[in-house]
Amino acid sequence: MKKHILVIPGDGIGPEVTTWGKAVLEQIASSFNHEFTFDEALMGHAAIEATGNPLPDETLEKAKKSDAILFGAVGHALYDNDPSLKVRPEQGLLKIRKELGLYANLRPILLFDELLNASSIKAHILKGTDILFFRELTGDVYFGEKKRSEDRHTASDLMIYNKYEVERIAHKAYEAAMQRGRKLCSVDKANVLESSRLWRETVQEISKQYPEVETTHMFVDNAAMQLIKDPKQFDVVLTANLFGDILTDEASQIAGSMGMLASASVGDGTGFFEPIHGSAHDITGKNLANPLASILSVALMLEISFGLKEEAELIISAVDQVLKEGFRTNDIADETISPYKVLGTEEMGKLVLKFITQ
Amino acid sequence: MKKHILVIPGDGIGPEVTTWGKAVLEQIASSFNHEFTFDEALMGHAAIEATGNPLPDETLEKAKKSDAILFGAVGHALYDNDPSLKVRPEQGLLKIRKELGLYANLRPILLFDELLNASSIKAHILKGTDILFFRELTGDVYFGEKKRSEDRHTASDLMIYNKYEVERIAHKAYEAAMQRGRKLCSVDKANVLESSRLWRETVQEISKQYPEVETTHMFVDNAAMQLIKDPKQFDVVLTANLFGDILTDEASQIAGSMGMLASASVGDGTGFFEPIHGSAHDITGKNLANPLASILSVALMLEISFGLKEEAELIISAVDQVLKEGFRTNDIADETISPYKVLGTEEMGKLVLKFITQ
Ligand SMILES: CC(C)[C@H](C(=O)O)[C@@H](O)C(=O)O
Ligand SMILES: CC(C)[C@H](C(=O)O)[C@@H](O)C(=O)O
Repeated sequence: MKKHILVIPGDGIGPEVTTWGKAVLEQIASSFNHEFTFDEALMGHAAIEATGNPLPDETLEKAKKSDAILFGAVGHALYDNDPSLKVRPEQGLLKIRKELGLYANLRPILLFDELLNASSIKAHILKGTDILFFRELTGDVYFGEKKRSEDRHTASDLMIYNKYEVERIAHKAYEAAMQRGRKLCSVDKANVLESSRLWRETVQEISKQYPEVETTHMFVDNAAMQLIKDPKQFDVVLTANLFGDILTDEASQIAGSMGMLASASVGDGTGFFEPIHGSAHDITGKNLANPLASILSVALMLEISFGLKEEAELIISAVDQVLKEGFRTNDIADETISPYKVLGTEEMGKLVLKFITQ
Repeated sequence: MKKHILVIPGDGIGPEVTTWGKAVLEQIASSFNHEFTFDEALMGHAAIEATGNPLPDETLEKAKKSDAILFGAVGHALYDNDPSLKVRPEQGLLKIRKELGLYANLRPILLFDELLNASSIKAHILKGTDILFFRELTGDVYFGEKKRSEDRHTASDLMIYNKYEVERIAHKAYEAAMQRGRKLCSVDKANVLESSRLWRETVQEISKQYPEVETTHMFVDNAAMQLIKDPKQFDVVLTANLFGDILTDEASQIAGSMGMLASASVGDGTGFFEPIHGSAHDITGKNLANPLASILSVALMLEISFGLKEEAELIISAVDQVLKEGFRTNDIADETISPYKVLGTEEMGKLVLKFITQ
């Protein structure tokens, strides 16, 4: 198979972890006789520094021409400390999501048995958990009009949804549910928000087309609680952009660490694959970042964008093997792990490559 | 001391649990020679059934004339299943918050050592946790303009904050931090939302007036994760209405169950005290509800609205005693609790009364 992949390393630990995602792609290409070609582009703070623009036109053009995109992370403390800055790294990420029509963000909560003890949640609560989040990604308060009054004392963001936006992601989520446990929980705040009432009405309508799927509706505050109390109750979770942002980060604790979670953003065109962790400037350049989320993002790319299921499974089982042998990065090491098995980014990346070739 | 208290039982398990909050107030009055008088009023589904209005004028008048309000819960599955209904129970709660100017919602995460094992989170992660949430309660997307297009295919809610709204709750939160661990974490989504940027700028400004307090800022997605990963890192958490709704429900798992968490809403006038749990229709009328959150809400009322610290502490230590003796309601019973110590609402309420009089 011949594919062209754009790599956007981004900011913070983005470049460090993406190196290993790319290395895994190269290894898979050589092991399975695929021809993967690569290009690289700037986004976020890195792009602002180089061009003044968090999403340079060149990046967008390259993105549209590629078969899939492997992305790292964006963000920088500079902007977090100064909310008044007009040009911000995150704008690059939001714009590329919108421009590529990436309306469905899939975040599988993949639980490796070996990491049951790395979580702050009790192992017996976690064991058996298998959740697939569908987070809407191009609507909601993220993209509604933003306003600041002239005296700068009033600020607003419009939380807005159109019916078709809910419909298209609901269909994707239901199709996935049909292939899995046939349960779908739609999360909203319909007891307070009009946009959530539209969300709920629409999901209720669509649900009639999938009678085999058991549909439930849950308020977001309750969902935030239930996710920790009893994560096994969930199969597919469907939710809006902002609620999905919050709930999936929370759910990363189920997998032991955010450093383990991959995501796929899909929609109208090229798919976009990224770890759910952020730029993590506190550990940047220290060889401490966990490359597994980037590597698992590659597995999602191979399966979802290229239909290469065997290759994807090989990557997941390599990660599983590495964990079974007791190797960890710092973020997923519990007190039972002997210190010499706690690896840096590079060592972990190399070890996964080794298990892929075995 | 002479005080007039309005009791609003509301819907679902509201009446069942509020009975015991009120009984505790009566016991405290007789033990300490206070004169507490009571009135009762309707709100939510109960009020819609009786008057067509989720917050009848009579209730609001009684509320304004009282020295404090003890509230149960509102909500009904009827409305949850039909998002198109125009008159809804929650409107009563939102309107009374606004009308009474209850802009600061205090939610202490009070952790009883005996319940360390009732949580789905590991005991050593929880032990020592002591968080006080300040949730803004009369602004945000809860109260911004709601719109539905004529074809009903587009719906929106305005997420909006004014500087003075952030300032007044920030001051309250900082004052509390000064009396506690002198750490304040402000939670927002300033990397995406303009209203959050106003929030962050304003908190940054106010923080200069409290140099003894260590201020940090955290994005809401990260906060949702950190709360479970390492709850001990937090002291006072200050956040907006919607984020506070989600994060405090999530944090209820730290206390073992939502059935344990009380809240105080304060601001311009009469204080309003309520459990953070909802109407829980699935267990209504079954003598299964945990009355402790209502009872602990009464402790907050006595301390915050009436300045009766000794009385408040007596209630908390009575609850502590009951738990120490191994008694539980269903929601907080773990497998180590012998079944005959798992009590119903009534039995638990009576037992707390007994320990108060001892
Ligand atoms: C960086 C930020 C804009 C982004 C988001 O909020 O969507 C991130 O948190 C994510 O979840 O991908
Ligand atoms: C019932 C509902 C409107 C309410 C809210 O969202 O504020 C509740 O969840 C709460 O937290 O008090």
